[in-house]
Order: sequence, then structure tokens, then C-alpha cells
Amino acid sequence: MESIKQNRKLRSDLKDAIVASGLKDGDTISFHHAFRAGDVLINDVLATIASMGFKHLTLASSSLTDCHAPLVEHVRSGVISKIFTSGIRGRLADEISAGIMETPVEIHSHGGRVHLVQTGELSIDVAFLGTPSADSFGNANAMVGKSRCGSLGYAMVDAQYAKHVVVLTEQLMDYPHSPASLTQDQVDSVVVVERVGDPSKIGGGATRMTTNPRELLIARKAADVIEHSGYFEDGFSIQTGSGGASLAVTRFLESKMVRNDITASFGLGGITATMVDLHEKGLIKKLMDVQSFDAHAADSLGRNPNHIEISANQYANPSSKGATVDQLDVVILSALEIDTDFNVNVITGSDGVIRGASGGHCDAAAGAKLTVVVAPLVRGRIPTLVKRVLNTVTPGESIDVLVTDHGVAVNPAREEVKARLEAQGIQTFAIEELQQRAELLVGTSAPIAYADKIVANVRYRDGSLLDQIKQVAK
Amino acid sequence: MESIKQNRKLRSDLKDAIVASGLKDGDTISFHHAFRAGDVLINDVLATIASMGFKHLTLASSSLTDCHAPLVEHVRSGVISKIFTSGIRGRLADEISAGIMETPVEIHSHGGRVHLVQTGELSIDVAFLGTPSADSFGNANAMVGKSRCGSLGYAMVDAQYAKHVVVLTEQLMDYPHSPASLTQDQVDSVVVVERVGDPSKIGGGATRMTTNPRELLIARKAADVIEHSGYFEDGFSIQTGSGGASLAVTRFLESKMVRNDITASFGLGGITATMVDLHEKGLIKKLMDVQSFDAHAADSLGRNPNHIEISANQYANPSSKGATVDQLDVVILSALEIDTDFNVNVITGSDGVIRGASGGHCDAAAGAKLTVVVAPLVRGRIPTLVKRVLNTVTPGESIDVLVTDHGVAVNPAREEVKARLEAQGIQTFAIEELQQRAELLVGTSAPIAYADKIVANVRYRDGSLLDQIKQVAK
Repeated sequence: MESIKQNRKLRSDLKDAIVASGLKDGDTISFHHAFRAGDVLINDVLATIASMGFKHLTLASSSLTDCHAPLVEHVRSGVISKIFTSGIRGRLADEISAGIMETPVEIHSHGGRVHLVQTGELSIDVAFLGTPSADSFGNANAMVGKSRCGSLGYAMVDAQYAKHVVVLTEQLMDYPHSPASLTQDQVDSVVVVERVGDPSKIGGGATRMTTNPRELLIARKAADVIEHSGYFEDGFSIQTGSGGASLAVTRFLESKMVRNDITASFGLGGITATMVDLHEKGLIKKLMDVQSFDAHAADSLGRNPNHIEISANQYANPSSKGATVDQLDVVILSALEIDTDFNVNVITGSDGVIRGASGGHCDAAAGAKLTVVVAPLVRGRIPTLVKRVLNTVTPGESIDVLVTDHGVAVNPAREEVKARLEAQGIQTFAIEELQQRAELLVGTSAPIAYADKIVANVRYRDGSLLDQIKQVAK
Repeated sequence: MESIKQNRKLRSDLKDAIVASGLKDGDTISFHHAFRAGDVLINDVLATIASMGFKHLTLASSSLTDCHAPLVEHVRSGVISKIFTSGIRGRLADEISAGIMETPVEIHSHGGRVHLVQTGELSIDVAFLGTPSADSFGNANAMVGKSRCGSLGYAMVDAQYAKHVVVLTEQLMDYPHSPASLTQDQVDSVVVVERVGDPSKIGGGATRMTTNPRELLIARKAADVIEHSGYFEDGFSIQTGSGGASLAVTRFLESKMVRNDITASFGLGGITATMVDLHEKGLIKKLMDVQSFDAHAADSLGRNPNHIEISANQYANPSSKGATVDQLDVVILSALEIDTDFNVNVITGSDGVIRGASGGHCDAAAGAKLTVVVAPLVRGRIPTLVKRVLNTVTPGESIDVLVTDHGVAVNPAREEVKARLEAQGIQTFAIEELQQRAELLVGTSAPIAYADKIVANVRYRDGSLLDQIKQVAK
């Protein structure tokens, strides 16, 4: 029997794909953020959607960066009336903190986003998923093509759960395209676009490799802490969150691993060139990659059979049947602020303005056996370690050790870790001592003048409301 | 924070896993049939379940073979009271045809099974999925381990949809095991068992490579038909169903492909050693494998990057967003009976007794541009080509050409195919002529004495009731 038309999913252009999706006012549209600062798709798609006259949409991108400043106009004009995201930076963040939106933004973690999708609170009508290469039936990946961004871990969730899935691709491949990170049975439409993203900008911003001497000093110290924490043994596993010092820790672990004949079973998370280097040297057996943090990592995913693409559900969803963070030994994470109860803020600056991302912070912190936060004690005239964080993204009970350039503090709940460190000659301080030192150095920040309006809800990974971010008064 | 116990899914034995699953009377349990005649798991699990006293279960295996004769006792004793399956053979089939079950068996196609699962008619409470290798968190495959059976295409659907998923494995691997055909976020329990199946028996029965001269003659003829059908061009795609002549067609296509400088874009379906051979020679670019039909194919899946594991949803589900059968050019299928309206029976013998499987027959026939049925005109004293099949699995409107050892018949709906064949010197007959020839050779079969009882419902791939199989009177 004659087959149904084999190219039945192929749309002539983005507008055609939007029409075919059945998008209507009030719907929820989603995107992935694998291109980070190199993303162009969200702006392009929103510009087209705006030109078609749609209103009151909910925007659910797995995250947003400072390249998404053009969205401000779509918020103002009522095209976007609600936002779910892991993070916001730049002008869009400034405007949201200044109260531009009527409805608070929902800030979620990477694992928490999947939880919201699965419970139905975040119900995606149309997912617009940018991929460097795809075939006309929807098999797509980001390992092949000009703009390789590597893992499509966040997109995989949207492809599974969205009612309608549009794959936007730069390069149309022969059927069947493989490997299929997104599969034909998840995809409704395929449309070829000129560009989906600039992979050279993935490794900028929060995922850059630092050359800052203070960050390197903190990273070296953190490596010493890990070595003597009791968790540095053959077969251990490790994740490094975004941020200069955090990503740099891996570099200082290499010599310790070689010296002690220790091989890691897996490296998790945003995968970096450094992680790939250790993997290719045989020091990390497998890389579990929900997001490739630079172009080198993106290339490795297509080349190394033990560099494995995982979905955000496999990575970090607390209500998943199995999240990799629950198998994690050690995670190193950053902080914009941390307080004497070890609560961590990675979403607002000391001025109360949104300028960060929840990311996988609370997910990895909750799952790992040892959670290390690395941060400078002060940044310029601003203390990082404070009596009380402005906003909490990760509760202090998930944090085990704080490593600063002025010393190490261990959570009192982890006396055994403290004892191991002290036994190996690593001096530790009460966190209050370090906080006082910060205060001595730069004083305390002036209290922030908030308006009454709530501009964002910070959701914990299980969906519960953990904190609220208020409008900053002008 | 200390992680949740990393081995939280590991059960001490099968009984422990069944208790942990929360199984209760009346529930639906599922299995895959990747080991075909080498399966041991269904019998083992049912024996344990029976010993634990469970009753009135619905058994949903993607298929059943003659190795499942022990299930007869579990039907008799009321442990199993309903069955969903693609096929049944041997003593279990004989007993069901003789009326052993109170409720009719639901016979579905491979694609239709996924449809029943997704619509909720087949709601799986506990899936028992045998895998040669798995880690303690549930990442599993059948490419690594002693008993490699290759693709887990059917199991992938159960892993995604079952409320509770038990992975039974022969070999426990270090975490994280990869590639993960079944992933940790789909799996609730892992249990190590002595054996899951005997891969040496996969390639027996309906998937054996024939040496029968008549089957080889039919296969050669079918290859000629394909060559001149209008669909034999560079980039064409092909599937061969189970059955000696069908599987053998690929062999006769090889020289034609080389001579005409034709490469196939993909081979689909149950993948055989012959398909792998053509793939490794560069004549078939990709293999889309929902089920490996022999140990050689199973090994290839782990070795060849363009030998791709696909789920039954990607393979054949008519309500999937994208089934590979819809991209298929040519399929060659077998028949137990075919009638002058081209309707095909692959489920009952000429005595009306169940002895076959629906499999992907109606799925591939509906999807492919050219569907060729290969069958001997008569088998011993029994006509294959009859006026009216006893039972219909695939409607005649999906069948384009019948190739027998006595000649070729083209469906009158495909006059253009007939014209192309005749133009290349391939003689065709009206199907009625061939039927009369069969009748001349062996006469007509005596009518079957049926009882009133319905022993099985034959469901079409879209879930509709296509036919019913009656009890055969003793």
C-alpha cells in the first residue's frame, strides 16, 4: 500500500510550523538552553510569534541568559505574560526585578523543571527545539552539524512531554539520522532555519575556564578538601557546577588521582573540556552529560562512546525513578551568597536583583554524598558569606563544606568530615568566624529597599515554594 | 548530604522483587519476547508467581512461542486468566484453540500492542524485563553479557509505560552501565537471576535461514519482482519478515544491488545475519532494529554504530508520531494462508488451530510502498492460496504482490506494478488462476468443525476488532 507521504512533517518555514502547531493565545511554549549565551532561537521564534499576533503566552525555557534581552519587548507588549525558567541574567533580569511582569516568574531547578512537567503544573503546548541536524521525520541530534552544542538533555524532556514538538534545524540529513537524541516518534514538525545557535558562545559566561588567581587558589583548596574528605577513593564520582572556581577543581584533582591510582566511575553534569580531557586520559570512565559546557565537550559526545547523553529526568528529577545525582559522591558548586546556616543564593546579587540561575544546584547538593561550595569570601566591597542570604536556592542542610580564599568551614552536621580534614592538616573554621572576617574586611551591605511586589517564586526541586524574590525599589 | 542508599533498587531474589512490586490478584504483568524460542524468563517468573499464590493475572507478553507450554498449567490453575500477545505456538496454542480459556486471547500486532498500551486498554502493572546485563540502578542492555539478544525494542515500551518495572539480569555491571537501552529513570527494581534466556535459540523456528530449495526458489523470484517493481532504486529501504523464503530474499538482492550500484538507506525490522552482512559490505547504510533475529545480529548491534536499536513505538505503532514502517519502501512477508482478495492469515493453520503470530505483518504491510507476500502455492496436501482465509490478520488492501512457486499475482489495485513487471518479462497471473491451480493440485480442505466459543480476538493495528478465532471442535 502506498505509504503516507514520507515528508509529512516538513514545514516550509517557521511561520508555517507555528500555524501547523495549532498555537493559540494563552498557550505554553518551551525551549532548551543548550546554546546558553549563543542561543538565537528563542529570540527568533518569539519575534515571529509576536509578528503573528499571539498574546499571553507562557514562556518555559529550561534557562535564559543575557542574550535574551529582546524578550523584554515581548513582555511589555503582552506576548509573554508568564515565565518558567531556571535562571535569568542581563537586561531581562533587571527589568523583571524592577517589576515589569504582572505574574511572578517561576524559578525552578533543572530536576525540578521535569517534576513540574510530569505533575502537569508546567504543561507544554508547543516545544520549539533547536538542533544542528535532523532528518525530515524528526530524528535529531546536536553532535552532527555546523552548530554542534552536544547534549540535548533538556530538550529530551520537552520532546517527550510537549503536546506538539517542532524541531528546528540548520541541516537536513538523510533518513534515518542517527544517533537520535530526539526521536521521530516524539516530533510533529520539522523546519529548516538559517541558524539555531552559536556554539562558540556556549563556553562563555558561567562556564568559562577561569584564569583568575583567586578562583584558582580556591579550586586548589577545594581539591585538597575533596582528597581528604573520605570520599576520594577508586570509583568515586564527581560533578562540577558552573562558575570559575567550581569548574577548575577538576584540574587540581588530576595529579591527586594519578598519584593515588584513583579512577572516577563517572563525571556528571555540565561536561567541560577538562572533564573530557580526564576521560580521554582514562581517569574518568564515563561522562554523563545533560549539557555540554563548551564546544570541546560537544564534540566529545559525538566521538567518545562512553561520553553519554542523559535527559534532565535521568540527571536530577527528584521524582524520577532514578536520578544520577542520587548516585553522586562529590559535587562542587558556586554561590553568589552563602550564610552562616550554609543556605546558598545563586539567583540574586547583593543588590537583590536577579542575575543567576538555580540550575542543578539544589539537585546535585541534595543527591551528592559530599557537597562543597566554593566562593571568595568577599567580592570587591561585597561580602559573599553573610548572616542571612537574600534568597535561598539551596537549603543549608544540603551543603557540607564551604571553601573560601580565607579558609574552610564544615557544616556542623558533618563532624566526621571535619575530623577527617583536620586529621590531614586542613584547618577548618566555624562558619561564623569566616563571616565575621568578611564583615571585618568589607562591613555589611546596606539593607535593600524592596517594594511589596513579588517578582519571582523560587521553587525547590520537589515543587514546593522555597522563597520569593521581591521587586527592588527604584 | 548523604545520598539516598545507592543500591535502593537491588532485590535479593525474584520473590523479593515480586513482593516489592506490589503485585496483586487481577493485575497485568508483561514480558518481552526478544529471546523468542530461547526465552526462559516467562516460565520462571510465572512459576514463582504461582508458588506465591497469585490468581487471575493478565499476561501481556509481546509474543509467546512453543517454549511457553508450561503456561498451560497456570491457565488451568487460574493464575493466568487473560492473555495479550502477538502470537502463540505449540501446546499452549493447541490448548487455547481447544477452549482452555474462559476469556478470548487478544492477538495484536507489534505496532498495535503499543497502541493498546498508550490508549490504556493494556495497562501494565508490573513489567518483568529480562536483560543480559544491567547496573544496580536499572540501566540495562542486551548487547553486553553472556546471553546477548540484541535489541530490546519491545521491552523499551513496557519500561516506559508500566507502573512498576523489574529488570532481571544475569550480570550486574558497574554503575553507570551503557549504552542504556532501558534507563534508570524507568526502572523500579533490579534482581540478579541465573538465566534470562538462551540466545542460541533466537534464530530457530520462524527466523531460521532456510536451505529448502522451494523456499529459495520463491525468494529468488521475489527478488526479481522487487528489482522490477519500480521501487528498487538507490536509497530504497527494505524489511523482511520472519519465515524462510521472506528472510532469504535479501540474499538474492545483493548481486542486483551491486550490479545496479544501488545502496539501501535502511533495513528494518527483525534484523538477520544476512542484513548485517549487507550492512557491513556497505550495501545497507543503516539497520533499524526492533528485534535481533539471531545471535549474529545481536552482536552487530553492539559493534556497528549504524545498527540502531529502535522501540516498537518507533517501529510500527500507527498512532505514534512517527513509525519507521511509514518510511518503508519494500517489505517481504510470509503467509500461512492467503485468499483471492489478498487477505493474509498468519495466525491459524488450515485446521483452524492457532500456530503463528501477527507480529509486524499488518504494520509493515500498511506502511510500505510495496508489500510482497511469499508463500508456496501448496504445503503438502494443503493449499496456501484459498478462496477465503480462515482468519485475517492483514487485510488484502495492504498486499500488493503474491509470489508463489507457481507464479506471481499482482493486486488489481496496483496495475502500474503489474505493468512494470510484465514489461520486464515477469509473467503474472490473476490470483484466481493461481488459486484454481492450487485446487487442481490438492483439492480443497474439508470445512472445519468449529464450536461456538471465541478463543481469540484478532485486533488490527489501530485496535479495532478485525476477526475472531473460534474453538476447534474435538
